[in-house]
Amino acid sequence: MSKNFVRQNKATKEWVIYASSRGNRPKDFKQKQKSLQQIQKRDEDCPFCPGNEAMLPEIISERSDSSGQNWQTRIVPNKYPALVPNGNTHRSQEGIYLTMPGYGTHEVIIEDQQHDRTIATMPLQAVETLIETYHQRYVELMSRHRNMLTIIFRNHGARAGTSLIHPHSQLIVTGFVPRHFRWREEQAQRYFDQYGSCVFCDILKFESDYQTRIIAKTSTMTAFIPYHAEVPFEIWIMPNRHQADFGAVSENEKRDLAQVLKEILRKLHIKLNNPDYNYIINTAARYKAGEPQLHWYLQIRPRLTTPAGFEIGSGISINPSIPENDAEFLKEAD
Amino acid sequence: MSKNFVRQNKATKEWVIYASSRGNRPKDFKQKQKSLQQIQKRDEDCPFCPGNEAMLPEIISERSDSSGQNWQTRIVPNKYPALVPNGNTHRSQEGIYLTMPGYGTHEVIIEDQQHDRTIATMPLQAVETLIETYHQRYVELMSRHRNMLTIIFRNHGARAGTSLIHPHSQLIVTGFVPRHFRWREEQAQRYFDQYGSCVFCDILKFESDYQTRIIAKTSTMTAFIPYHAEVPFEIWIMPNRHQADFGAVSENEKRDLAQVLKEILRKLHIKLNNPDYNYIINTAARYKAGEPQLHWYLQIRPRLTTPAGFEIGSGISINPSIPENDAEFLKEAD
Repeated sequence: MSKNFVRQNKATKEWVIYASSRGNRPKDFKQKQKSLQQIQKRDEDCPFCPGNEAMLPEIISERSDSSGQNWQTRIVPNKYPALVPNGNTHRSQEGIYLTMPGYGTHEVIIEDQQHDRTIATMPLQAVETLIETYHQRYVELMSRHRNMLTIIFRNHGARAGTSLIHPHSQLIVTGFVPRHFRWREEQAQRYFDQYGSCVFCDILKFESDYQTRIIAKTSTMTAFIPYHAEVPFEIWIMPNRHQADFGAVSENEKRDLAQVLKEILRKLHIKLNNPDYNYIINTAARYKAGEPQLHWYLQIRPRLTTPAGFEIGSGISINPSIPENDAEFLKEAD
Repeated sequence: MSKNFVRQNKATKEWVIYASSRGNRPKDFKQKQKSLQQIQKRDEDCPFCPGNEAMLPEIISERSDSSGQNWQTRIVPNKYPALVPNGNTHRSQEGIYLTMPGYGTHEVIIEDQQHDRTIATMPLQAVETLIETYHQRYVELMSRHRNMLTIIFRNHGARAGTSLIHPHSQLIVTGFVPRHFRWREEQAQRYFDQYGSCVFCDILKFESDYQTRIIAKTSTMTAFIPYHAEVPFEIWIMPNRHQADFGAVSENEKRDLAQVLKEILRKLHIKLNNPDYNYIINTAARYKAGEPQLHWYLQIRPRLTTPAGFEIGSGISINPSIPENDAEFLKEAD
């Protein structure tokens, strides 16, 4: 295989450059950072640790009983919110420009009581409770009239943009739909109009037959490194059933999502020595009638490389690692 | 002014979130890193330093005379190229996907002989020679049939993706046009069809009248913080004359671009203590007939914040600083 080639993201038509001329092998991305074992189990200054519940007002929680410290997950407001629930989405002119109030919601989902665990090392039951919390809150927030899009995401490690160790996810609700999401919807709609099928379903079918890039699979969920992965070890976890909206996820799918997510993050944790990563649930924005030709998926992006001027300015990713090699390397972990 | 609001990029219709709830002031972005004074003037191991010319084959150079070490700028191949000049841009199928060879060019522009200088601290004449080198090489490369887009960019500092201190820029030529560029062109074309004018010319006119966000201005160039700046201290340097193609830049414009670029980078250097940054020249892709309704500009993006899962996944930027405040702060430097 040539050291330099270009691949197209079938869903969005974006091109990704592969440049393996540095001779990187997947194992070269293994991190040298400290392992989680050196972190304490509880930190008395941590606002997310049990005993400090009074530091952050609670929006909602999953509890095994009604007493104060017996929670499994807690949702609290973000102390420095990107968007705030008061206000509206009325556009107004500011000179020649358009502006609107910062309407939305920004919450933190505390995933677990224990300060030093992360999804890779939590018991499966805790990950199941976390997915259940995601889903409940997602459905609740999307039932409100002005909320156009709910994005659930997780930042793990300093390179991924977080300074807090205690395991947590975040959730941002916007009152507008970004171009990035509209583009994906429009391309999926065009594909459907031309071929009569969902482009993501077609990708899933091809990958399942081809096998090489598949990392994990259950009867309802598939995890794979996409053909056009933009960064080393980018992984998509996708429901086998066609559905645009994360809110439509079934009980079986939630259970399998928890299992596959934990398995994948454990593999990354072991093989790359606890790398920093982001993940995000890509789902449909609100539709007035029916739903778009989309397919939701959870996208994991390890932060192993630094995007520079070219990537930022052109929107073209340069991936120094080849998806098939990354997949093979990850599958060794067990 | 509210702490949370949203602004639209008039050219691309993208929304940017402003969240100043952390109470950041522009001066809080001042870096604590070491200053350039601690770097040596020449590093004998540096492949870009004079005396080591044999380490890298020369593609082209600006020289004051014909002898070996009397160069001002040198262009050399990138040791680990993203794209390579052999090959073609023929698309082929790989299963259900599209792929093509990694055709293109990836070069390094060594900006100066001195190891410890950067544009902020170089003499103006050296910056003028650099802009001249950019322009000559741009015109030469775009004269070749298969080259669709030439992107000139600069990475300054580790957070901006470079490990080499010696002042250098890079240049990547692609044989395809990325979605990001097509989108900007299409939106500019739509704007022109609706209003009969260039959206960037209209922005420039408004900003020049409004004054608040303007940082520097000459008879041919304007530097300003855009209304919709995606990161703190994002700055655009734009020709006052409407032109889509950087290749069409005039002698006066090149001289003014050098002067304004140096002035802006000097202001950032002084006021933010030599921050890491990227810059890129946004210009038109190749057109078969005429040119698109675009306006080239040099875009500077300091790397003062870390994009996390939300920004990466949604394409929405969260800027913790307000453009007008950043502009006011920068204008104090003199």
